[in-house]
Amino acid sequence: MNHSIIRYILGHVLRVEGLLLLLPCLIAVYYSEATGWYFLLTAAICVVLGTCITWKKPKSTIFYLKEGCIATSLSWIFLSVFGCLPFWLSGEIPSFTNALFETISGFTTTGASILEDVEALSRCTLFWRSFTHWIGGMGVLVFLLAIIPLSGGSNINLMRAESPGPSVGKLVPKMRSTARILYGIYIGLTLLEIVLLYINGMPLFDSVTTSIGTAGTGGFGIKADSIAGYSVTLQWIVTIFMILFGVNFNAYYFILFRQFRKAFGMEEVRGYFLIIVVSVAMIAINIRHLTTSIFDAVTQSAFQVASIITTTGFATADFDQWPQASKTILVLLMFIGACAGSTGGGIKVSRFIISIRTVIAELRSYIHPKVISTVKMEDKPVEQDVIRATNVYFITFLLLFSASVLAVSLEGHDLTTNFTAVAATINNIGPGLARVGPTANFNFFSPFSKYVLMFDMLAGRLELFPLLILLHPTIWKDMLTYRRRMRKLAKSDR
Amino acid sequence: MNHSIIRYILGHVLRVEGLLLLLPCLIAVYYSEATGWYFLLTAAICVVLGTCITWKKPKSTIFYLKEGCIATSLSWIFLSVFGCLPFWLSGEIPSFTNALFETISGFTTTGASILEDVEALSRCTLFWRSFTHWIGGMGVLVFLLAIIPLSGGSNINLMRAESPGPSVGKLVPKMRSTARILYGIYIGLTLLEIVLLYINGMPLFDSVTTSIGTAGTGGFGIKADSIAGYSVTLQWIVTIFMILFGVNFNAYYFILFRQFRKAFGMEEVRGYFLIIVVSVAMIAINIRHLTTSIFDAVTQSAFQVASIITTTGFATADFDQWPQASKTILVLLMFIGACAGSTGGGIKVSRFIISIRTVIAELRSYIHPKVISTVKMEDKPVEQDVIRATNVYFITFLLLFSASVLAVSLEGHDLTTNFTAVAATINNIGPGLARVGPTANFNFFSPFSKYVLMFDMLAGRLELFPLLILLHPTIWKDMLTYRRRMRKLAKSDR
Repeated sequence: MNHSIIRYILGHVLRVEGLLLLLPCLIAVYYSEATGWYFLLTAAICVVLGTCITWKKPKSTIFYLKEGCIATSLSWIFLSVFGCLPFWLSGEIPSFTNALFETISGFTTTGASILEDVEALSRCTLFWRSFTHWIGGMGVLVFLLAIIPLSGGSNINLMRAESPGPSVGKLVPKMRSTARILYGIYIGLTLLEIVLLYINGMPLFDSVTTSIGTAGTGGFGIKADSIAGYSVTLQWIVTIFMILFGVNFNAYYFILFRQFRKAFGMEEVRGYFLIIVVSVAMIAINIRHLTTSIFDAVTQSAFQVASIITTTGFATADFDQWPQASKTILVLLMFIGACAGSTGGGIKVSRFIISIRTVIAELRSYIHPKVISTVKMEDKPVEQDVIRATNVYFITFLLLFSASVLAVSLEGHDLTTNFTAVAATINNIGPGLARVGPTANFNFFSPFSKYVLMFDMLAGRLELFPLLILLHPTIWKDMLTYRRRMRKLAKSDR
Repeated sequence: MNHSIIRYILGHVLRVEGLLLLLPCLIAVYYSEATGWYFLLTAAICVVLGTCITWKKPKSTIFYLKEGCIATSLSWIFLSVFGCLPFWLSGEIPSFTNALFETISGFTTTGASILEDVEALSRCTLFWRSFTHWIGGMGVLVFLLAIIPLSGGSNINLMRAESPGPSVGKLVPKMRSTARILYGIYIGLTLLEIVLLYINGMPLFDSVTTSIGTAGTGGFGIKADSIAGYSVTLQWIVTIFMILFGVNFNAYYFILFRQFRKAFGMEEVRGYFLIIVVSVAMIAINIRHLTTSIFDAVTQSAFQVASIITTTGFATADFDQWPQASKTILVLLMFIGACAGSTGGGIKVSRFIISIRTVIAELRSYIHPKVISTVKMEDKPVEQDVIRATNVYFITFLLLFSASVLAVSLEGHDLTTNFTAVAATINNIGPGLARVGPTANFNFFSPFSKYVLMFDMLAGRLELFPLLILLHPTIWKDMLTYRRRMRKLAKSDR
């Protein structure tokens, strides 16, 4: 295993985080908040540590899928551990576990909070909290790829480990250009939302935090009532942008290069919109009696459907009070999730399309045993490897899900709370039902359950395998022998 | 498609059912119950109708997997529709939907009841209710195979469609002998349980109904409190026999032919016992404070674990009142189910072993991309086709499960009720939690939900695909054109 390249990437990640931490410092200066000093301190730690680690360039910059996965998972863990320091050091979140939970929830774009009173936080903390969504949404390694020339062709393994969806395609032959195009679209859409919210009457700070929270499909709000306090126009803008950030970014790439037929013909995007329209209609009918008008029902339904399917997790209504059919639809949407190649989480629409077609192909094989039936997607036959990987993904998901529900159930909360708490974290959504409903928070869980849910958030964001291989004994052995080898080297140097 | 062989098999199934219906008639004669006449009437209908249908022998007795699946699903539907007639005609279950629900629940060995007061039923009805479990447990087509010489080698397709588990192996080269050996073991174990219960003080009628309910892993009791009213010794006998009937019957075959090493080396059986021991221990610790002694805790825990993992569904305690961790373990056991090749339902231990090993192989492929890792089971590499089928099974299960929960949720009961009602029916268990807990029943559901749950029971018992292909448009078209062709033939005959 190429350990030095992993070390090198981790160092770069820390340096980037250090630079990103300067943004909340600027906010602190503007609002003259003393909390800013903690952000500056953390930034300094990150930059110094990162620079030390990256001082020695690695001999070989080639890395394979294994190194890509390990580098990715460790990067996200490093990001979270260092990213939570300002919350903890400043005392705004006094418990380290809670600070880490909040930060992992931020970077993984989950938006599940342990805060009882979010409005008590300082502005710079609120900004950093939402900004972690934005960083995590597109992925910090994709960002690295966009700015640092890492290595030859093997860095697709980094992107493969970090990007959501069953298969990673390059938009253009060069990985670096792909990463830059993606970030370009991302920044463009975010700015557009900020402007639209601002000119429709939302204060600038609120516009910025809401927009970066939407862009990353995160869901941390800066108000106790999330988005419910804003006007209906603003709610609709947020609804539309949540849906837009859940679309496969390849569609925007096609639109950008005027390949409209390709963009609007994407089966995954069509399936995604179909699910949204059907769910909004069903819930709107189901909650009609609780609302003042049909328009109100559609507004609430659309906002909640968009918030859950894109795994954002903003709320305008306490959907825990809705009728059971609506709640069940929302729970199912939690698992479906957004499109592959978007900033959203969940299992992804494309995986569901592939799975449903695999089942249909299986049924066909019962009826015509001699015909080999192929599964098609986007007009191309899906490779056997992708089908297998999709199937294995589902099963791994199920196993991890069951194990987590069992672990959390040791505390004795009701089944709905445990089930939806795990669903809301592993799918990177935020709120669940019952005791983790949209008006509640995750603080009542024990530290043990919180660490289980943190693991789920990371596993969900990194699509399971990159994080799970960290638990594999081979990797542990490899790490341990590496340290021993290093010690030996150090001894022989003396 | 070979329609005439399907017709022929259905006719035989009806005739067999007619003969089996004579058993409750005998019970009625013994206890001099007038309800017996309805059983005699139904038996006559079945025999006459069956004889008419089988009058003309089919030209070709060859059939493929498709015909096997269709014959199997239709057989089970016919069995249930005719089997519910005595309940309905006698007025002991006045609603046809309820009578059909109870019968499907019986044949599929589910044991979910709509009866508010089971003790009000006549003896012959109680016997028939439990006896449907026994018939459904081993499968009526396996029974047919054992007694009727159907065709050459292609009748493995019948057994494949009806038998539980990822792959069907023949014990001996001839299918008919395999079926006879299986039924021999089945009858032997049932008789043993009857004798053991009887000599330990259970009345004979109770011993018989309890034993046939255990053998089929069904779960209909003849008392309102299920098994709770019997002595601890009797409870332990039932516990042990539930566990025995959940074991892969191949193990008994090996024991019968003194191949002990093979029998005790079966990985699935070992996995099954491991899960049981761990679950019993965990639940016993978790419920210790609710019980009078450690022995009592273990007794209750073992009974409930055995009842749920084998998907029997008897109860000695209201486990809906147990702590959340215990309830969660039971819910997980609902999905795991018994061994393949047993009379139990659920997803099956072997499927879980294959799945877990597939996930481990996938992790290995991330670490050593060039090594092709194989999944092994019972010391043999598992064929790619079996792995694929197992994966597709999980996904189909998930999709059907979600659709059913959504359909049932339209009624507005709580999530736990809907979730466990579907889990308890699709896995052929019986009781769930909350409103469908062990002290409750399924009568409060609307007819729509009841039909959804009936479909789930059948789909679960027939392992999804045989029932699902009945819904495939090709099959519908085929059936319709067949009727048209028949009409044309009839016309040309005139």
